[in-house]
This record gives sequence, C-alpha cells and structure tokens, in this order.
Amino acid sequence: MEVAASASEVPVTILAAKVDFYNGVTVDSTTLPHDASSFDSVLSASLEHWKKEGKRGVWLGIPIALSHLIPTAAKHGFVFHSAEPASVMMTRWLPDNETCLLPDGASHTVGVGGFVYNAEKRELLVIREKYIPTGMAPFYKLPGGYVKAGEALGLAAEREVEEETGIKAEFQGIITFSSVLTAAAATTLRHMHPHLFSNSDIYFVALLKPLSFATSRQEEEIEEVLWMPIDEYRTHPSVNAVNQRIASLFVESLGQGRPALGLETIELTSDWMKAKTFHDLYTFCNTDAKGN
Amino acid sequence: MEVAASASEVPVTILAAKVDFYNGVTVDSTTLPHDASSFDSVLSASLEHWKKEGKRGVWLGIPIALSHLIPTAAKHGFVFHSAEPASVMMTRWLPDNETCLLPDGASHTVGVGGFVYNAEKRELLVIREKYIPTGMAPFYKLPGGYVKAGEALGLAAEREVEEETGIKAEFQGIITFSSVLTAAAATTLRHMHPHLFSNSDIYFVALLKPLSFATSRQEEEIEEVLWMPIDEYRTHPSVNAVNQRIASLFVESLGQGRPALGLETIELTSDWMKAKTFHDLYTFCNTDAKGN
Repeated sequence: MEVAASASEVPVTILAAKVDFYNGVTVDSTTLPHDASSFDSVLSASLEHWKKEGKRGVWLGIPIALSHLIPTAAKHGFVFHSAEPASVMMTRWLPDNETCLLPDGASHTVGVGGFVYNAEKRELLVIREKYIPTGMAPFYKLPGGYVKAGEALGLAAEREVEEETGIKAEFQGIITFSSVLTAAAATTLRHMHPHLFSNSDIYFVALLKPLSFATSRQEEEIEEVLWMPIDEYRTHPSVNAVNQRIASLFVESLGQGRPALGLETIELTSDWMKAKTFHDLYTFCNTDAKGN
Repeated sequence: MEVAASASEVPVTILAAKVDFYNGVTVDSTTLPHDASSFDSVLSASLEHWKKEGKRGVWLGIPIALSHLIPTAAKHGFVFHSAEPASVMMTRWLPDNETCLLPDGASHTVGVGGFVYNAEKRELLVIREKYIPTGMAPFYKLPGGYVKAGEALGLAAEREVEEETGIKAEFQGIITFSSVLTAAAATTLRHMHPHLFSNSDIYFVALLKPLSFATSRQEEEIEEVLWMPIDEYRTHPSVNAVNQRIASLFVESLGQGRPALGLETIELTSDWMKAKTFHDLYTFCNTDAKGN
C-alpha cells in the first residue's frame, strides 16, 4: 500500500497499482494486505478513488496463498478472468453506464502435430499414446502436443516430436490446420473435457524433415513409436478421418508443386510501449510442397 | 454429497463426482457444502477414497459465491487451472510418484481480422478504434476481434465485421495468419498486457466478399470506418508493417492463381464417447485467390 498523491485535498490510502495504456489499473499483488478486513477497507477506498479519477478497468491478481481475500473481492464486484496454477486474475469494470470492454482471457488451446516424413522410404512417423480413454481402441496419431504460450509453432513441433519419439527433425512449414469446432461440436466437447469448460482447440500440422531415424519412446506417455508407410496410414482403420485426410492431401501434393505455408517474421517496434514484438506470418508460397 | 458404495467395509461419505474417460474425477459443484469446515472434512475423506480407488486427477470447479472454500481446497493441494467470470476450476493430481499429466488450460487468445475487399473499386474496408493506448497515434486496421470458444473462424469474421462496420460480407477462406510470438516477444507482451499473464495470440485473416457497401459505425468501440484504396493501405504510415505486408501479398496474388486456404469440414463419430465432433480443416486449394 502507498499514500497516493490524489487530486482531492486529503491523501487517501489506496492499493499500490500501475495505470496501463488504456487507463486501466493493475494492482501490485505483492503489496496486498494479508488480513481480509484490512483488504476490505483499502479495496473500498481504492475503488472510490479510481472511479473519481475516471479509471476504467481494474485488474487484481490474487496469489493462491492469499485466496482467503477472494470472497472480499467478489463482494466488491470482481469476477474471475483467467488463472495460472498459483494465482487467479480477477477484474472489475468501473464505468457504470458503459459496456465492459475488458479483453477476454485465453479461450483456446493450441496443438501442433509433427508430420515427419521420410521421403526416401515414403514413411511417416506415428505414435500410439499410453493413456487413451477407457473403452477406446488404440489409434495411431502424429507425435505432438500443446503449444506453450509464447512459443513459435515450428519450435513446438520440433520439441514435441523429439520428446515423444527421440527423432530430431527440422521444421519446414505449416501444411494445414483444423479449427475445432462449430458451436454444435463445442457443446459436445464440453462433455468430453469438462475441465476445459467450453474452450476450443486449434490444431496445426507442421511438416518436419527428419534428421535422425532411430526412435526412442517417451515411456511416460507413449506406448509405441513407429515409421509407417504413408499409403498405409491413409487408410489404416486405427487412424482417424482427419489424419487420414491430411496424409492423403500430402501424398496427392507430392511432386505437383502444391503449396505449403511459408514463414516470414515481421518485427514491429512500438514507440508508445518502447518494445518490440515479433509476428510469425505464415504466407502462401508456390514452391514445392517440400518433404521431397 | 452422497453415500458412495465403496470397496471398503464401511460406506464413506464423499463428494458427488463423475469419473471421466481417463480415470479422473470431476466433482459436482452444485453439491458442494457451503460451510468451509464441512467442506474440509468431506474433501479429506474424498481424496483418501479416490486415492485408494486409483483415481488420477481431480477437477473441482468452485462457483464465485462459494469462493470462501478456495483456501480449504488449496490447503489440500489443489491449484488453479482455468477461470470463467463466475467460477474457477481447481485441480489436484493424485498419483504420488508420477508426473502430472493433466491437460493445460487455454493458453491462447485467437483473433480474426476481416479482409473485406471490394474488387470493383479495389478498396479495402478499414477501421480506426476509439480506444487506443495513451500516446499512440491512431492507426488503420482490419475490422475484427476475438474468436469465441467454439466459434468457427469464418463466422467470427462475418460477425465482427458486421458488428463494427455494418457491412454484411461472406467468408471466402483464410488467407494468412500470424502467430504471436517468439519467446522474446512473449516477455515483451507480458508488459503490454499484464492481465493476459503470459498468454499468446494467434491472428487469422479471413477473406470476405462484401454483400453491402454502406457503412455504419459501432459507436462504442469504433471511431471511423472507411473504404480505403488497397494500394494506399499497402504503404499508409498509419498501417502497421504486418497489415501492410498482408495487403501487399494479396495485391500480388490477384489474377495469378495464388492459393487461398480452402475449407472442408470433417465429422468424427466416436463410439466411446457417443458423440460427434466437427473439424474445420483448412487445406490448400489451387484455385484463384478469390476476391475477384
């Protein structure tokens, strides 16, 4: 907490906070009082102060060790926004007669599958997972997994392929992606993964060129790793329809100059935030589908 | 709460819960005791019971009205997983000597920009937003916004374009996308949007064919809507480098048969979960870049 230099005559004790570029306020979580009653008083005064100053949204991150403060925040109109294992972000929109314009939290998980193709033998690297839903037949899929926040798609594919199969492979480009799902399917998915609430999934397929060929299984999660003839994978009964289709499109593209998505990175420098951001832009290239 | 038919001799009172396909347990949030002390006892007994039964992960959604139960859950080893405005999901991994295999929560926000091109006049539909960061010069961008969980990319683009500009337009295909960001840039973004923690953003650009031409501005969020000659947009100083590049790639593609991503929807039926899912698969097509 700090004594703020306020526009009013009497200094008011309010929560330590930073003002953001959109005239919102982010509370410094490291300075929260540990006692719920003190928190109640200072939060009350802070909200009044920020409203007078015309502030718009308030961001309040609460560490799990201080989770006893959450009911107090909720009493003052805060709702949940997003979560990390050890903290939850709560928000409150201040203007009384305006629609809340605070941005949504993350809504999608992003997965990437590695399409690791051995052109010489016309074989594809496939895996069977150790843990599959009860009652489900085992099936062959592409090695892959979740893209971490802030991770480039190609690097995620290379990392997951190596972790699961021991194969070192080099990212060539994104060859396709599927966006799951339509509204109808989202309802379905909610039953499938209750823990994901109503989140969506986007699944990218990255073409990788193998740099090694001897497989080694990640024992915790993977039951089997093998190089399968790609023509077998296209129609294998233990391969789902989406993956069959992707393999077929790839085979049809071979030698026909069908495009893959090329990658160029554009750097943006912003004066106002004194920082750079990098945008991996996937664009169409008319080169060979690579992998040859 | 319910009296479970347990394998032990004495029936144990445990939390009502459903077992999922991965041998995980999802607690029925509607039956949580409202009193923290009762919750403490029943949660203790439940965890012991589930461990004996070999259950793996526990999913515990806590409504905001019962947020006083969160410290008790935290005491028993639960951590936060994900959040919706009125509830937070907590998880606990049960096997003592195994790495936690519970899936991550949503990590990405997904945005879509509508590239609405009037082929006859060679004009692009662009907007200026009302709320821009303090100290930043206004800039022209594509109308668009966040893709909702479970929403198809094309429908999201049509919806956002109509909401912001009043233009009805028809989805033709995805023409490119950018994945923000490399690890270095993720660090940068954390400063930019502290409320998003370390989330990432994927931004798709959807090609739309305008079906109407008279614009009407969404007053709450948009300052200006206009049709701008596309050649002007390619080099306009108030257009960022990523958007300039996208417009240039599009102009270069006109009439040259450069590809857009075609869309096909694949339906998967799963016996084990007795449900269908729909996968919008974007694949390469060698047709004209459309928009003509």
